[in-house]
Amino acid sequence: VTTPVGDLRSESSFIPYRQSVGRHRYELTTPALVLDASILRRNIATMAEWTRTHAKIRPHAKTHKCAEIARLQVAAGAAGITVATVWEAVAMADAGLDNILIANEVVGKEKLTRLAQAARETNFLVAVDSVAGADALSHAALSAGTRIGVLIEIDVGMRRGGVRTPTEACSLAAALSRLAGIVLRGVMGFEGHVVTEPNRALRATMAAEAMERLIACVEILERAGFEIEIVSAGGTNTYDMTGANPRVTELQAGTYVLMDTAYGPLVPAFKPALTILGTVMSRNERTAVLDFGTKVMAMDLGRPALVEPCATVRAVHEEHTLLDVQDDARLRVGEAVEIVVGYCGGTVNLNDVYHVVENDQVVDVWPILARGPGRSLVA
Amino acid sequence: VTTPVGDLRSESSFIPYRQSVGRHRYELTTPALVLDASILRRNIATMAEWTRTHAKIRPHAKTHKCAEIARLQVAAGAAGITVATVWEAVAMADAGLDNILIANEVVGKEKLTRLAQAARETNFLVAVDSVAGADALSHAALSAGTRIGVLIEIDVGMRRGGVRTPTEACSLAAALSRLAGIVLRGVMGFEGHVVTEPNRALRATMAAEAMERLIACVEILERAGFEIEIVSAGGTNTYDMTGANPRVTELQAGTYVLMDTAYGPLVPAFKPALTILGTVMSRNERTAVLDFGTKVMAMDLGRPALVEPCATVRAVHEEHTLLDVQDDARLRVGEAVEIVVGYCGGTVNLNDVYHVVENDQVVDVWPILARGPGRSLVA
Repeated sequence: VTTPVGDLRSESSFIPYRQSVGRHRYELTTPALVLDASILRRNIATMAEWTRTHAKIRPHAKTHKCAEIARLQVAAGAAGITVATVWEAVAMADAGLDNILIANEVVGKEKLTRLAQAARETNFLVAVDSVAGADALSHAALSAGTRIGVLIEIDVGMRRGGVRTPTEACSLAAALSRLAGIVLRGVMGFEGHVVTEPNRALRATMAAEAMERLIACVEILERAGFEIEIVSAGGTNTYDMTGANPRVTELQAGTYVLMDTAYGPLVPAFKPALTILGTVMSRNERTAVLDFGTKVMAMDLGRPALVEPCATVRAVHEEHTLLDVQDDARLRVGEAVEIVVGYCGGTVNLNDVYHVVENDQVVDVWPILARGPGRSLVA
Repeated sequence: VTTPVGDLRSESSFIPYRQSVGRHRYELTTPALVLDASILRRNIATMAEWTRTHAKIRPHAKTHKCAEIARLQVAAGAAGITVATVWEAVAMADAGLDNILIANEVVGKEKLTRLAQAARETNFLVAVDSVAGADALSHAALSAGTRIGVLIEIDVGMRRGGVRTPTEACSLAAALSRLAGIVLRGVMGFEGHVVTEPNRALRATMAAEAMERLIACVEILERAGFEIEIVSAGGTNTYDMTGANPRVTELQAGTYVLMDTAYGPLVPAFKPALTILGTVMSRNERTAVLDFGTKVMAMDLGRPALVEPCATVRAVHEEHTLLDVQDDARLRVGEAVEIVVGYCGGTVNLNDVYHVVENDQVVDVWPILARGPGRSLVA
């Protein structure tokens, strides 16, 4: 049995973090990733409420990489989970999750073999956008004696993966129908070129256009006789736009559950559940320096911000966060500082665990699975 | 005994990677971090040759986070190693390294306690820039029944950590002399505001100015009766500038050993030893998409570039690298692609291991220690 390292509570690498349980959130060894459980539950409930009367959600677990959070989402009605990689899929399956969509093409012998083995016991869906890719997946499934569901990825305007025309979609669907071991279940099209548009009205228009492109493919596939059960799309910033299209059956949004400063202003319905606690290690005039930087907090999308606005973030270096201090009495050497991150998915990927807090006290420590290349598995 | 997870060859999380030994570099499961051993050795030899007639080097191990590389550097004459965090220091000490400079202030009870415990068996140096910080370090050393060497950090123009005037340096030195358990050994001043200046002549002028500021502090400290044995400074892009100052006794350069596209043009004496191998997972018209993104390859400093220039990097997303293909016959689905990273230190921090290659064949797998917050230790 293959089990992800982080998911074993007895795993030795996990021991130092367990000692945090019972502490106040400001007494953690820093840097520490902090997850506010009540905000997390509220974000999950807000999305569950919306999806009850619209498309379902199969939330993207690449954001949180955490089996405990995935279970809360499924308990609130999620149709399963979405992941980005085979290793995330395997880690989540080993943790007991099922109905897992890998929203990417899978290439490479080891990854295909591992996926097909896991597919004997767990229901997976995998994106495909080429005959060569589908053929390799078919071979892996046949070798493992299993069948794997596939979604045709459609490029809805992002110019990344996916087939680009309804004609290509039909020709790929026809090729898929001739391959054993894989079963066409539907389509997916992620409007990644839309999600960061700050103007909500424009974002809605662009999202609607992207979904028109996706549904055009669906209709032509259906006219050609292919059954399209699943139509998957949508990010956190567009969930209520793509999800409002009656032909979209499920959403892939992920960030909504943790949130960050990049997405916060675009979807005020969801609140930041994730923060990083740091400690002032140096203070000189109006500069305070915290004991962590980009090796613990990803900066790709947005600028971090202090929970208590006694300073602003001037810069984040590899091992330092530099603050411009407004309140001179604050932020002396040794003082704890809590920060809302700019980019939650990348930050989670840099950390070992969540320190889960309720009423400011650490109540649990949840491991982060399949970080980085994600291959660290116990044989 | 506490041992870092990654440094145990028997550690279960390490098993899948060991299976790569013997493969061709293009047959690795992707994404894979590849380290060319002959280029690595040449970079180490180039620096060793220069330092034989100038300042010594105590190379920064935050870049590589790898005990095997640190041992090669020490074998080539390094005076020890430099690290950024207590967890890197402890991991390296457990792996047998000695004379370890933590080039940052250390704050927080657990980190101070762990450092002081380790200092019973390993020689550490720690940066200090405040009486409060030095006092906490002194208490930790006394509790552990040991003594820890300290360097006063001087701000040489970066406006980050460090005391900012010779007067402050003298007053801190006087305070240190009244604290038990810590011993003033010298000063450090990192010219981080200089290292990315592209114009070599201007960079040299700025580096010289920064060193003048540092040496002014040294001279005033010496006149006040403090013995300054160690004067530490210098990055990869300025090693021959700061290291040319006769009062600088050692360099902290780290990137030179791996290199990346950000630093490559500034110091052509060192060549890229580090690459990432990916696989084309999607191909459409002139777009090829690789099976990894910013969760495996850090983008903070520079733009990645293909080893074989059959395409250029258009964008790097969280889980995808998008290429603009020039040679249409290349980069079909399933093809391996090797990329020189834009930022080696951040990229290493995202990965589990190095796949070490000689003559294009994997000869060993070296673990990466103390990633992210770095606290995953085996009790």
